[in-house]
Amino acid sequence: MKFTKMQGLGNDYVYVNCFEETVNDPEKLAIAVSDRHFGIGSDGLILITPSEVADCRMDMYNLDGSRGAMCGNGIRCVGKYAYDHHIVDKPQISVETLSGIKYLDMKVENGKVTAVTVDMGEPEQTSELPEKIEVDGTEYEFTGISMGNPHAVLFMDEIDSLDLETIGPKFEFHKRFPDRTNTEFVKVIDRTHVKMRVWERGSGETMACGTGACAVAVASILAGHTEDAVEVELLGGCLQIRWDREKNRVFMTGPAVEVFSGEYEE
Amino acid sequence: MKFTKMQGLGNDYVYVNCFEETVNDPEKLAIAVSDRHFGIGSDGLILITPSEVADCRMDMYNLDGSRGAMCGNGIRCVGKYAYDHHIVDKPQISVETLSGIKYLDMKVENGKVTAVTVDMGEPEQTSELPEKIEVDGTEYEFTGISMGNPHAVLFMDEIDSLDLETIGPKFEFHKRFPDRTNTEFVKVIDRTHVKMRVWERGSGETMACGTGACAVAVASILAGHTEDAVEVELLGGCLQIRWDREKNRVFMTGPAVEVFSGEYEE
Repeated sequence: MKFTKMQGLGNDYVYVNCFEETVNDPEKLAIAVSDRHFGIGSDGLILITPSEVADCRMDMYNLDGSRGAMCGNGIRCVGKYAYDHHIVDKPQISVETLSGIKYLDMKVENGKVTAVTVDMGEPEQTSELPEKIEVDGTEYEFTGISMGNPHAVLFMDEIDSLDLETIGPKFEFHKRFPDRTNTEFVKVIDRTHVKMRVWERGSGETMACGTGACAVAVASILAGHTEDAVEVELLGGCLQIRWDREKNRVFMTGPAVEVFSGEYEE
Repeated sequence: MKFTKMQGLGNDYVYVNCFEETVNDPEKLAIAVSDRHFGIGSDGLILITPSEVADCRMDMYNLDGSRGAMCGNGIRCVGKYAYDHHIVDKPQISVETLSGIKYLDMKVENGKVTAVTVDMGEPEQTSELPEKIEVDGTEYEFTGISMGNPHAVLFMDEIDSLDLETIGPKFEFHKRFPDRTNTEFVKVIDRTHVKMRVWERGSGETMACGTGACAVAVASILAGHTEDAVEVELLGGCLQIRWDREKNRVFMTGPAVEVFSGEYEE
């Protein structure tokens, strides 16, 4: 089976072009290829397949074989793969996902995609602005933002030394969030730059979370900390987030990198 | 650059056939390819190169770019690669390493190597049998064995629940071991089977340590716990260790697996 390993902000998947390859048991394959010592090593498996309603479809499987609906870092790589490998012949494309059809706008240099903008949809404010919350005896203020999934955004003076392993789960499982929550810890650098760390529900601290960066930008804009276009620095790299307040849509721009291609025997 | 990812007991390296490829800056390449999110993902880089004194040479670089001398899991994969990819045309070969010339004996099935036996050299007893040591207020007994590098082997009734993160460093940095030590925690299953966990000096707990498995077998045999041929179960899989007491040499047999091959752009 031919595959390509790609990453966006260090969030890496094994990509298989199912316009040419056939995968019979993707759950099992995802578990096997994701293993970082015995397999190829990745956060999961993404199949790029034909779609009847869009230019292509993204079928995503997590490293435990479970189905993933959508991943901002992953879909940027789907766009780059589809363009660079001639599945599509235009820089604006639609991609079918389990979260609906997503629209990508790709930046092309010398015939290759270097950055991808994804329409991440409508943000929704889900708390007061800000709302107080008591966690472990300390009072915090957070802004609740939904990007389809729930986020609690906290502004702080210092985030580098935070012990997320301890504090992250206390937000994730707080009774205020019956569906659990992703939590973003944010330091505002200036009116167009913020820095964040993220505790993802079910995953722990990760290097990058696309919907989290969008939620952080929206919360920063709502609080008056930044302009409507913000560079968000995550552990894995930077994303440019723009909130089009008239259309109420959030656009995320970030890198997509092909690391290597290979041949794997199932 | 063409490469092949191989693993032995989960100890995985990126292998480059330098009979065909040229690598200009292996330290830098090792750091780049080893990264498990932004690179290929491995414990390091091993170049298979021509040798003037053996059938081929193994040039090993750790994931931080530093030079590695020898790795039991790695050299088995070198043997498999050299045979399967026709660098050598015989199942008994010599491989030059920074620790001297090593001799491999390969098991071939259907034209491919499935297991490799490595002559791991002469063991040396470096303690009383056993020797008492006080660690953190508790008295333990260990057997010191050198396989070129230092090992302290401890026999225990139970190893699964051991907190190696806590106890491992206390042996590693104990004043009894001025050069620090690898420490093996061993449960004897029967006269031909033992189970072990290893704390490697400088690395922490790892899935497999070839010299550690050899030291464990020698200590088990010296203590009268086992016969001269022992199957050693590690977290990453099993190794067969045989101590030829007449020649005083230890032979290690274990698997070598090609996971995938690929193309990486530097």
